[in-house]
Amino acid sequence: MKIALLGSGNVATHLGRALKTAGEEIIQVWSRSMVNASALAVELAAVATDDLSGIRRDADLYIISVNDDAIESVASQMPDVAGRLVVHTSGSTGMEVLGDASHSIGVLYPLQTFSKLKDVDFSRIPIAVEGSTPQIVELLSAVAGKLSHTVVEMTSAQRRTLHVAAVFACNFTNHFFAVAADILKREGFSFEIIRPLIAETADKIQISDPQDVQTGPAVRRDNRTMEKHLEILKDQPALAEIYEKVSQSIINLHKQDRR
Amino acid sequence: MKIALLGSGNVATHLGRALKTAGEEIIQVWSRSMVNASALAVELAAVATDDLSGIRRDADLYIISVNDDAIESVASQMPDVAGRLVVHTSGSTGMEVLGDASHSIGVLYPLQTFSKLKDVDFSRIPIAVEGSTPQIVELLSAVAGKLSHTVVEMTSAQRRTLHVAAVFACNFTNHFFAVAADILKREGFSFEIIRPLIAETADKIQISDPQDVQTGPAVRRDNRTMEKHLEILKDQPALAEIYEKVSQSIINLHKQDRR
Repeated sequence: MKIALLGSGNVATHLGRALKTAGEEIIQVWSRSMVNASALAVELAAVATDDLSGIRRDADLYIISVNDDAIESVASQMPDVAGRLVVHTSGSTGMEVLGDASHSIGVLYPLQTFSKLKDVDFSRIPIAVEGSTPQIVELLSAVAGKLSHTVVEMTSAQRRTLHVAAVFACNFTNHFFAVAADILKREGFSFEIIRPLIAETADKIQISDPQDVQTGPAVRRDNRTMEKHLEILKDQPALAEIYEKVSQSIINLHKQDRR
Repeated sequence: MKIALLGSGNVATHLGRALKTAGEEIIQVWSRSMVNASALAVELAAVATDDLSGIRRDADLYIISVNDDAIESVASQMPDVAGRLVVHTSGSTGMEVLGDASHSIGVLYPLQTFSKLKDVDFSRIPIAVEGSTPQIVELLSAVAGKLSHTVVEMTSAQRRTLHVAAVFACNFTNHFFAVAADILKREGFSFEIIRPLIAETADKIQISDPQDVQTGPAVRRDNRTMEKHLEILKDQPALAEIYEKVSQSIINLHKQDRR
């Protein structure tokens, strides 16, 4: 299959690499920045362009992997490739931004957080697929199946809900790691001291249900400790408020569980 | 060194095992429940008791590893072992609950989350030590050094701050894993689908500073996506509020970073 890749960010880079490794042919890489397009194109043995009107019309699959709010405009500016398949890779963006139901459109959403400098094992990354026809879903499932062991068909609405879950499980937890780093730094301690705890916290839930392994003052209803913690956070009212709300949320979830 | 272990919960169990592996002699295990005391005592080749007045007076070290709010009462009810060292293992409890400065008291706080069923590599767990005299700090550092590569001297106030950081990095993140599981369940998806994302999120910060690898709609100031997410959470107002506050906190931390 001949693929044109539109984008050169983290998702485009890791997806492009995985597709090439799986034996697909990347014929072209487009990016707003020629430097970025070239760097990725060289790696994927593709041709680079920074001109949307220069996108080839003979690819079998066009993958738009750019920032969520740029997808629609990139899709509308690329040449009319009527009948050929155009997909995006976004969790929170509906398929319909690519066109109406008469178009061959779809979504290929890898549920993972990517960093430029860190390799990931694509075979373990769940991929959500959606298509405007059953044939497209089948085709995209086949492509995704070459990359990953876990391929799930999902509507745009389901994918958006999955994305909310991912924000809590990934973006918000990473922020709490940053909050912890900040608290430690104010006290003169290195973030290093808390890394083993973070590794174990994530490791635990690979084999357990998170609700079953919840620890800490909130789930124990240890009000004295929570009050001491709020006292420590009194100079950071926004953080103290988050401490209170999340503690209350822990208490509520476990109350609900017992009903 | 002869050690009496007071407690049979997760921390007492893992600490007892690690001490025994390191060659220390556990002579006695006390627990309010004789069943629990016996189970752990058998494993540690110690004698079990559920009677605080039956604690032997000839141990070199008494480790009180019970719920935070029980430490003080356990300490006050155990026999007077004047001159012998009594420590607790709590992050958020001051050393002073064990007695005044004339006593031989201290703290041995392993910074980790323990589960009954999951083994942990104690050598990678940072241990914070505190003592009422420099000699006690030295002794506890030596004991802790047999268990772990990372031993840090800390005051009770510092340890309490470290504990707040741990609540964010461990307890609150685990709750967000549970929130994600709940959101997925409502949509009919298994928690399994998000486990690789969680593993990678924690893995990333083992080599990076969390603030440098923050991703998601908040750090991108992608208001459209955040609004869509809040719409999805509209039937769960407490969760929607947490979504808003944590997103704002991400924006604030990165603003602060750019100053």
